[in-house]
Amino acid sequence: MAPGWRPRLVLRPALPRVALASSNGRIGQRAGISGRQLHVDHRNRLTQFWVPPPQVALKDAKQNEESHAKLVRAGFFRQAHSGVFHMLPLGLRVQDKIEALVDKHMRSIGASRVALSSITSAGLWERSGRLGSVKPELFQFEDRKQAKFLLAPTHEEEITELVAQSVHSYRDLPLRLYQITRKYRDEMRPRYGILRSREFIMKDLYTFDTTVEAALATYEQVRAAYAAIFAELRVPVRVARASSGDMGGDLSHEYHLAASLGEDDVASCRACGFAGNTEITHIGPDSRPARSGDDCPDCGAAGSLQVERAIELGHTFYLGTRYSEPLNVRVQGDQNTPATSTITPLMGCYGIGISRILGAVADHLADPTGLRWPRAIAPFEVAVVAAGGSPLAQVAERVYDELTANTETRLDALLDDRPAASLPYKLKDADLTGYPVVVIVGAAWRRSTATATDSSAPNISLDGLCEVQCRQLGLRQDVPLSELKTFVSGLLAQL
Amino acid sequence: MAPGWRPRLVLRPALPRVALASSNGRIGQRAGISGRQLHVDHRNRLTQFWVPPPQVALKDAKQNEESHAKLVRAGFFRQAHSGVFHMLPLGLRVQDKIEALVDKHMRSIGASRVALSSITSAGLWERSGRLGSVKPELFQFEDRKQAKFLLAPTHEEEITELVAQSVHSYRDLPLRLYQITRKYRDEMRPRYGILRSREFIMKDLYTFDTTVEAALATYEQVRAAYAAIFAELRVPVRVARASSGDMGGDLSHEYHLAASLGEDDVASCRACGFAGNTEITHIGPDSRPARSGDDCPDCGAAGSLQVERAIELGHTFYLGTRYSEPLNVRVQGDQNTPATSTITPLMGCYGIGISRILGAVADHLADPTGLRWPRAIAPFEVAVVAAGGSPLAQVAERVYDELTANTETRLDALLDDRPAASLPYKLKDADLTGYPVVVIVGAAWRRSTATATDSSAPNISLDGLCEVQCRQLGLRQDVPLSELKTFVSGLLAQL
Repeated sequence: MAPGWRPRLVLRPALPRVALASSNGRIGQRAGISGRQLHVDHRNRLTQFWVPPPQVALKDAKQNEESHAKLVRAGFFRQAHSGVFHMLPLGLRVQDKIEALVDKHMRSIGASRVALSSITSAGLWERSGRLGSVKPELFQFEDRKQAKFLLAPTHEEEITELVAQSVHSYRDLPLRLYQITRKYRDEMRPRYGILRSREFIMKDLYTFDTTVEAALATYEQVRAAYAAIFAELRVPVRVARASSGDMGGDLSHEYHLAASLGEDDVASCRACGFAGNTEITHIGPDSRPARSGDDCPDCGAAGSLQVERAIELGHTFYLGTRYSEPLNVRVQGDQNTPATSTITPLMGCYGIGISRILGAVADHLADPTGLRWPRAIAPFEVAVVAAGGSPLAQVAERVYDELTANTETRLDALLDDRPAASLPYKLKDADLTGYPVVVIVGAAWRRSTATATDSSAPNISLDGLCEVQCRQLGLRQDVPLSELKTFVSGLLAQL
Repeated sequence: MAPGWRPRLVLRPALPRVALASSNGRIGQRAGISGRQLHVDHRNRLTQFWVPPPQVALKDAKQNEESHAKLVRAGFFRQAHSGVFHMLPLGLRVQDKIEALVDKHMRSIGASRVALSSITSAGLWERSGRLGSVKPELFQFEDRKQAKFLLAPTHEEEITELVAQSVHSYRDLPLRLYQITRKYRDEMRPRYGILRSREFIMKDLYTFDTTVEAALATYEQVRAAYAAIFAELRVPVRVARASSGDMGGDLSHEYHLAASLGEDDVASCRACGFAGNTEITHIGPDSRPARSGDDCPDCGAAGSLQVERAIELGHTFYLGTRYSEPLNVRVQGDQNTPATSTITPLMGCYGIGISRILGAVADHLADPTGLRWPRAIAPFEVAVVAAGGSPLAQVAERVYDELTANTETRLDALLDDRPAASLPYKLKDADLTGYPVVVIVGAAWRRSTATATDSSAPNISLDGLCEVQCRQLGLRQDVPLSELKTFVSGLLAQL
């Protein structure tokens, strides 16, 4: 094999011939250094799940540590370049759960999942008329033949082009297509970690209908799906009008979560529930942006407006023919439509920031002790933590198996089986990481099983007590193993 | 809201105000055109799963149609730009199954999943010394501050940098990290559809060990995992030496599938099982590339070499300190190591082309009638197809529910519920798409249940016969509903 670069699946690494005795020759001659143990079984073991050390650097934990710093310190992700991040196993699990949640609700409205290319052509964006206006935010490049491309920040152009080529009859509509993929924007000021990054995951849904009424009904169905998604996240998301709200006007809504790191100001009325971005919520004869204490512009309640910093997690837009017209989507109508006439489908586009939900929910729920995940997107629902020592490690495995037994309510558990870490260290680490529920196999277990024979491979008593901790509910309680799963499931149902 | 571009999550589409009566005003005034029905329930319904029409264009089906054309015609994916593809729902399901299969085997060897950024910096590639040699194949670009970036074709540099920053002790090794993400290469000649594209999905695993012995043991474990992956795919993958094979030399192996569209020539020995890329398998005193009929260079068997076109699905490399040395990965050794000395970890890198498996397996198994998927990565394991007419549509739902009942062997089924399509059309479509097993609710059912009362909502008899077809096994058989699931499971176990 010739060394160096060849046009192949795997990039040859231009590999020098390496003698068996490496630069670590001395080490290489020995039988091996016993470091990390690879122990693969059916359990989610923290020793097998890479979290970069140190997970708990107490000296770094400042009083007012930002949620972003907690996420990095706990090992959810790491910055690779300005505004560009590597997701590590913990962060990837949260991201996967957010994706699965969004996925479920997209399917519930009959949407089909696709995965469009990240590479898109500058020519297509010229045809839609957007290339000029958004240029500074685009990563653009040329291929070896000087063809112009860009990394797509969103996919209205590509999806419309795909549908224009694939769909030719009213029988193929309505159509709802979505994807959950990486998007790219060359932000002027990347900041707040993954809340405002240059490479990020977004869910984008595009809908195509034959009539305005049907398109607006679709819009309402998507709004309902968004409400269901945010309800499962159990964080208070405000739906703000992002337009005058005239039917058929530039109808759109923003979905905001109150967050100290937010970039928007959202005014909401305590009386009627009205909410609006202050950018468009103008008050009084001089039409200034709304402030806390203003009268509600919707119901008129005196002094009922409250303005909060918030971060946008999603957006819904009614597009009409904004893209279908210039990109030539035309379908045949039914037998009641003159054969010579065609329909230009009415579109909607609907985004949810997956990476942004990760960062914003972390920010919204974190307390000084650490992160606190809602059950729906926690990296694990429950962590089983054992005090050191082999007998309790065995008990912890049994406790883990009880929690994850394959019944209707199989819990998503993690076993903290690090042999060298102390119990206080493990608990501090669990607090930082933010598992909704922590189950401790320690003092309570020892106390409650003290009368049992002290064998090295003990029969594990179902009466043995585990200490259950839940920071979000402010709870610590000793629970017998026989009731543990029911008890923990009951807690999780509230989280 | 100001129209036009703003730095936000969702790109504002520079939306013109659209009157309720759109350009399709006449249509918009009517109650709606009855086109596609959105009918969401627990079943995988073909009507809810977007496959762009027409799925079966008989006039396009040439005698020697390439597998790539079949994949496009059946709606697995569409080309967006030269060498760049949009995955459609059918293709995405296959891709997801390949990913899940690879994922399972990566976890079996204790590897942790990450997701590194696609954007990587030119500076990092300069430090590893690769930037110059691979330049023509890279998509490179600058951000708004003229910082130089590229779209990563592979991630040795980024992962090594991440580990250098995160890992400092022998206790954190061995470490096995992998990802399944999009990769980018500006191919000189993109061709053969997704077999050689410019944006593609690859699994890449990177391993870090403290000794050469441990690193070589890791290499063998990964080889075993690769063998298990390809065994589940049930296609004959040849493992070819891609180096002289000296232990500790530039040890690497290629994993090839015989395919007419292949880009490699692989020589294999019928006697001893030796296999090698002809690029490095040289014969005779003049050291020319091996040809069919040559003597085996390994066992010497006369005339036993056979040379075939093949496509590379994966590659394993022992890297030694090729990247860990220049990118400064250093870890502390244990108490037997002098405190002043550090260890430079020994690395391996291991790729599997996910998109390429999709294209290559399709090519390897396709016959003139259509695609033929192995069970492990079929978009659906079994398609239930009903002849038109409401009573049989109801029976088909019951048949689907029997197959997918939540027992130990839950099958992954699809219900072809298109009301307007004829049975012959549906079957031709199923043949093109390549479901491993097709269950027909039609003539056999009618015949076998003719004595039953002809109610519009009939009691569905477990004695009713379904016709089961399996092209790969050359089988057509009538099977009573009561035995259907066991029978179909038995077929799938062979596929």
